[in-house]
Amino acid sequence: MRTLAVDLGTKIGQTVTVSGWVHRIRELGKINFVIVRDRTGMIQTVFDDKVEFTNESIIRIEGLVVANDKAPSGAEIQVKSFQILAVAAPDLPIPVNQEPDRLNIDAILDNRIISLRNPKIRAIFELQSAILRYFSEFMHSQGFFEMKTSKLIGSGTEGGTGLFTVEYFDTKVFLAQSPQFYKQAMVSTGLERVFEISHAYRAEKHDTPRHLNEYVSFDVEMAFIEDEVDLMNFEREILKYVFTQIEKNNKAQLLAWDATVPVSEDMDKIPVIDHDEAKEIITKETGKKVFEISPEGERALCDWALREHGVEACFINGWPRKKRPFYTFPKDQKTMSFDLIFRGLEITTGGRRINEYPMLIETLPKFGLTEEGLGDYPTIFKYGCPPHGGFAIGVERLTQKILGLSNVKEASPFPRDRKRVRP
Amino acid sequence: MRTLAVDLGTKIGQTVTVSGWVHRIRELGKINFVIVRDRTGMIQTVFDDKVEFTNESIIRIEGLVVANDKAPSGAEIQVKSFQILAVAAPDLPIPVNQEPDRLNIDAILDNRIISLRNPKIRAIFELQSAILRYFSEFMHSQGFFEMKTSKLIGSGTEGGTGLFTVEYFDTKVFLAQSPQFYKQAMVSTGLERVFEISHAYRAEKHDTPRHLNEYVSFDVEMAFIEDEVDLMNFEREILKYVFTQIEKNNKAQLLAWDATVPVSEDMDKIPVIDHDEAKEIITKETGKKVFEISPEGERALCDWALREHGVEACFINGWPRKKRPFYTFPKDQKTMSFDLIFRGLEITTGGRRINEYPMLIETLPKFGLTEEGLGDYPTIFKYGCPPHGGFAIGVERLTQKILGLSNVKEASPFPRDRKRVRP
Repeated sequence: MRTLAVDLGTKIGQTVTVSGWVHRIRELGKINFVIVRDRTGMIQTVFDDKVEFTNESIIRIEGLVVANDKAPSGAEIQVKSFQILAVAAPDLPIPVNQEPDRLNIDAILDNRIISLRNPKIRAIFELQSAILRYFSEFMHSQGFFEMKTSKLIGSGTEGGTGLFTVEYFDTKVFLAQSPQFYKQAMVSTGLERVFEISHAYRAEKHDTPRHLNEYVSFDVEMAFIEDEVDLMNFEREILKYVFTQIEKNNKAQLLAWDATVPVSEDMDKIPVIDHDEAKEIITKETGKKVFEISPEGERALCDWALREHGVEACFINGWPRKKRPFYTFPKDQKTMSFDLIFRGLEITTGGRRINEYPMLIETLPKFGLTEEGLGDYPTIFKYGCPPHGGFAIGVERLTQKILGLSNVKEASPFPRDRKRVRP
Repeated sequence: MRTLAVDLGTKIGQTVTVSGWVHRIRELGKINFVIVRDRTGMIQTVFDDKVEFTNESIIRIEGLVVANDKAPSGAEIQVKSFQILAVAAPDLPIPVNQEPDRLNIDAILDNRIISLRNPKIRAIFELQSAILRYFSEFMHSQGFFEMKTSKLIGSGTEGGTGLFTVEYFDTKVFLAQSPQFYKQAMVSTGLERVFEISHAYRAEKHDTPRHLNEYVSFDVEMAFIEDEVDLMNFEREILKYVFTQIEKNNKAQLLAWDATVPVSEDMDKIPVIDHDEAKEIITKETGKKVFEISPEGERALCDWALREHGVEACFINGWPRKKRPFYTFPKDQKTMSFDLIFRGLEITTGGRRINEYPMLIETLPKFGLTEEGLGDYPTIFKYGCPPHGGFAIGVERLTQKILGLSNVKEASPFPRDRKRVRP
């Protein structure tokens, strides 16, 4: 029966077996301390003899648990016997048991299989696992149906640029940029409320700290909404649940990065500003004339929101029609759409969609599109589709911004960019 | 405030608003019955006048709820006013409000956006959503970390055949056949216990009722196991949880297909038979000499298991080395690996993996492989990897076998096969 690090403090005076990775060896003359790492934490073990094994080897130890205030969980193990389960080569390409801050991002990602062993780096994916869990829990509790839709698409609803091509038997298909088409289709079937957490692909050449060519998208779509306000309010509720759960259950991961999550009630304070107003605020904050809301502008908006509303986030709505996809529901010269900027980074785009077939057909020429060119998409609307809308949250971006990571690639276990397709 | 079908029985005597799809119109002289479908069920509404709208149009109705034993949920609505939110074209390519059994699979899949509206067909994906939920709930409750790993891989760990090629900027990559490499890598980092529910791709040309070229794989990998028995026992626990929850929460979906889930305690009765023994049983059952365990053999094994053990499933272990991938942990001339056959269909393959670097290196030539050819994979083992193993459950196959669907494609919302890349 294996004892985990987290339970060691409750076993004082008992003989236990522990297993894990050799995290650190400290030789103090005749006595040697070996720190063993398992999925729940660190275990200090005391050897009377010199130890011969290498860091990162896998070891099983039997020994007596004794109290020691200086050891993790207030206990250490006096080793009676041990067994090496797997030997690690001594030439680790990067250190596992040191602060990773000194490593540059290429060293971390080129040696990803080793860098993920670092407890601070691993904490990113412990938190990401929790975020995936909280998303799923909340959506199911709200009566949403979880779907898994095809990533191999015959044509690009959002246009042919930025798509990766797949050789599919005798033809070519594309990797989906989003489940947009499918989530609208599923809503129209009568499921009404759907979500999906899956990969999405963008064949964009830029290499920035905010972009991934393959990312995980948490997509939401819901029927019988009035406008984008319903969607923004629902997103507030999702974030409240996620932040409440993280605060409760993921203190260790926050601590590893010296990070905090927003107070969940503050989600109600997130201001909603019109696209034009957003540009004015950015001009006032930065002293620069604004044509597009740039990354710098997004940061300025969050600084403003923190100062004026006490929350590091803001919704931008009222986007002009030409800045949004053709399927966005119009409202005068603008659209019923929104972005959410969180801690200086856009983490969500969403909006109400056109659901009436005549409106869709009337809209297409304005975007240089034809009904035939959209494949099966118009079928969704031809046979009756309720008012609906949705949004997506980028899972890596949310992880990044919660922990304060400087590059979104750090929040992907095996990130893909223009030059990186390994490991 | 919208009232849902499921709540109508509690609103008798009140004026309510309901919204949904026009499912069926029944004209009885001056009185017309319109059945409205929403995500929770059917609502009978009574119009005093002739109605002009088409099936599948989206309608909002205000009216008085009155008791009617013959109506769904024991209540119907006397319509006061209504509004058409979206008009459906009258030329539905396939009927929505009839039993789908008369439609062949091509009619169902070619017209997928419409066929998914059929309540019986939609029930498949209501159940699949629930299965995804129960998997996630159980795994998180057991301390597993959920991961989302890249589907774009530079080389194929399981060999180059059966891989789809992606044009990735100036190079070519492949769509992952499974997260095998990444789940082992994540286990080796110290996470120890991981799972992923994501798409997997097989570029196999066959078109059978058991295969999809893109499917959803529920992958599990765990460290510090002894052998495949630990894995089979863990899979029993997963299935117990899933079947218990389905029995409790998804009666409507089971009823739609006249289906039952196995009694969850019966998972402990699933026999474990050796690969050689399995072939003998098949020979006895079918009277035919057996070289490979074929689909017919899998059905015969489950008939035998039901008769002899009272459960429609069996584990097969003791697979010969040459029938398993190179990374399978050997045991004499066989391997520590297993399949699970459920209701006549293989739904799981798994096993302990080689975790010791010297054993891996020694194994490669026997499979015609080299260390260099495996890219980053050997790095996992070179720097210390605990004993571990895992398995995968095909989500569509499990859905299919629970509901008794004749073709696995029916259990994928937008299935992909050699000829089908739309809708």
